Amino acid sequence: MLSPLCYPVRMEGNSILVLDETKLPFAETYIEVKNLEEALKVLREMKTRAFGQVLLFFYTCILTREIDKTARAFKRARPTFDFFRLAEMIKEVSQQIPNIKEMVKTIITVFEQKRKKRAQKLAQILPHEASILTICNLNGELLYLYEALAQIGKTAVFYVSETRPYLQGTRLTFWELDQASIPAKLICDNQAAILMQQRVVNCVIAGSDRSNKKGDIINKIGTYSLARLAYYFHIPFYVLVQYPKEIEIETIQIEERPQEEVFMWLGEVFHPTAIYPAFDITPSAFISGWIDISGKIRCV
Amino acid sequence: MLSPLCYPVRMEGNSILVLDETKLPFAETYIEVKNLEEALKVLREMKTRAFGQVLLFFYTCILTREIDKTARAFKRARPTFDFFRLAEMIKEVSQQIPNIKEMVKTIITVFEQKRKKRAQKLAQILPHEASILTICNLNGELLYLYEALAQIGKTAVFYVSETRPYLQGTRLTFWELDQASIPAKLICDNQAAILMQQRVVNCVIAGSDRSNKKGDIINKIGTYSLARLAYYFHIPFYVLVQYPKEIEIETIQIEERPQEEVFMWLGEVFHPTAIYPAFDITPSAFISGWIDISGKIRCV
Repeated sequence: MLSPLCYPVRMEGNSILVLDETKLPFAETYIEVKNLEEALKVLREMKTRAFGQVLLFFYTCILTREIDKTARAFKRARPTFDFFRLAEMIKEVSQQIPNIKEMVKTIITVFEQKRKKRAQKLAQILPHEASILTICNLNGELLYLYEALAQIGKTAVFYVSETRPYLQGTRLTFWELDQASIPAKLICDNQAAILMQQRVVNCVIAGSDRSNKKGDIINKIGTYSLARLAYYFHIPFYVLVQYPKEIEIETIQIEERPQEEVFMWLGEVFHPTAIYPAFDITPSAFISGWIDISGKIRCV
Repeated sequence: MLSPLCYPVRMEGNSILVLDETKLPFAETYIEVKNLEEALKVLREMKTRAFGQVLLFFYTCILTREIDKTARAFKRARPTFDFFRLAEMIKEVSQQIPNIKEMVKTIITVFEQKRKKRAQKLAQILPHEASILTICNLNGELLYLYEALAQIGKTAVFYVSETRPYLQGTRLTFWELDQASIPAKLICDNQAAILMQQRVVNCVIAGSDRSNKKGDIINKIGTYSLARLAYYFHIPFYVLVQYPKEIEIETIQIEERPQEEVFMWLGEVFHPTAIYPAFDITPSAFISGWIDISGKIRCV
């Protein structure tokens, strides 16, 4: 395992152990989850996100044995992510593998293989000396990518956008790259334009919580801004997508997080008055290439 | 005085008292400055900036009585700002008012009148229900603007971009608006694009540390990104400018701040590897209007 973030959630006996991402990089601690309510609590408090959500959902289904109910509850806790698709996936696989533990283990193993393969595909289309701007956290996939680039003789340096207000870029991405001694520089989100203007970065890589067949994506707040800027600076913007579906992306509810979170570090100085949409929508027009979980690449 | 930030630096006897902006909003404290070295220290540590720098420069000239030497030293401490222009201004006025204390008092009084007048001019061209995105801090000028808007029956709400990493937006602008009970919402810098896309904001107002006659400006890092996004969303982007000069703006040295500052809140977890250009350049093509210190407005 390259980084604890590659597998932020695991199962031990009848408990789920969830890496508390909000404590990183200060401490690597795990929260024990024993039932649906506890799972929803860590989800709402953003103790885990992205691939961690996927794993948490699978394992919670093992605990509850109620796939649809779990999916509905997860969706209420974090509306932007497509837990119904994960529920469908379990049901599909359960036709071949009736034991739910075995089945989830299989799904996760396949996922890992696919993520590594996707990194290899992406490595092929990146520039020789890749100077990669990224946002939020891709759960170890940048580490796979760095390895894949090295295997074909390409170098890389990452410019990690800190991703306010939760600082997933700093706390998770910069941390995992730093731990793995991979060249990385931290930047503030508002520096992206100047780095593009000066050609310090030559590509952008982002994840996506949701995507549709047209190529529109939903990802962490700030992604849209990066995509729009990259487009005008003619810098390729690649996204890792999971399950492109026939959906109107505008109809998906964008999660509004508590405004207190924007004021997090300020204590009780202000009565918080803020806006905090946790995600934004990037229309396909501003994306250069999509790499789905099967490793298929579509470029404009 | 509407806010301590309208006059962040003042003189008492043979001392200069500098509002320690880095302590805001937690405490309103003043640092005593008695000579050039102490002035340079508060300047380098960004205890004051923007209009505070102007005041600090004037008062330090009173202490040192050496205008050119002071200008050179200030310029070394913070290279992006045009202290030489301020030195020229003192020399011009000193022909009419030989007493340096009287002269500086006159310059500052004239400045205040001009800033208020500029706010009135700007109020005239803003929309009726102004929904204003802003960055960094304009030293009380948004408070003048809010008053000026109210006088002609216009309402306003401010969306304050927090301005990482020093958070001047949060700590100074949001604070001064909050203190004055002016409607304001805090946002993270990476939310600007979605607010523009959704038409939550209908104009952007920024300051400028430097500007040239062509209309290019240098301002706090993140300004360029806002301007570029505003341009593509057809949202007017207005800048307050001081002394447009015949300069090639690209030749001005952009101050690189210590990379530790990007990691400020993270303690000693990482060996800091960051980039921190404190300013960026916004070409005139992305600016809708310039309002100079005489109140003259130029719009495209």
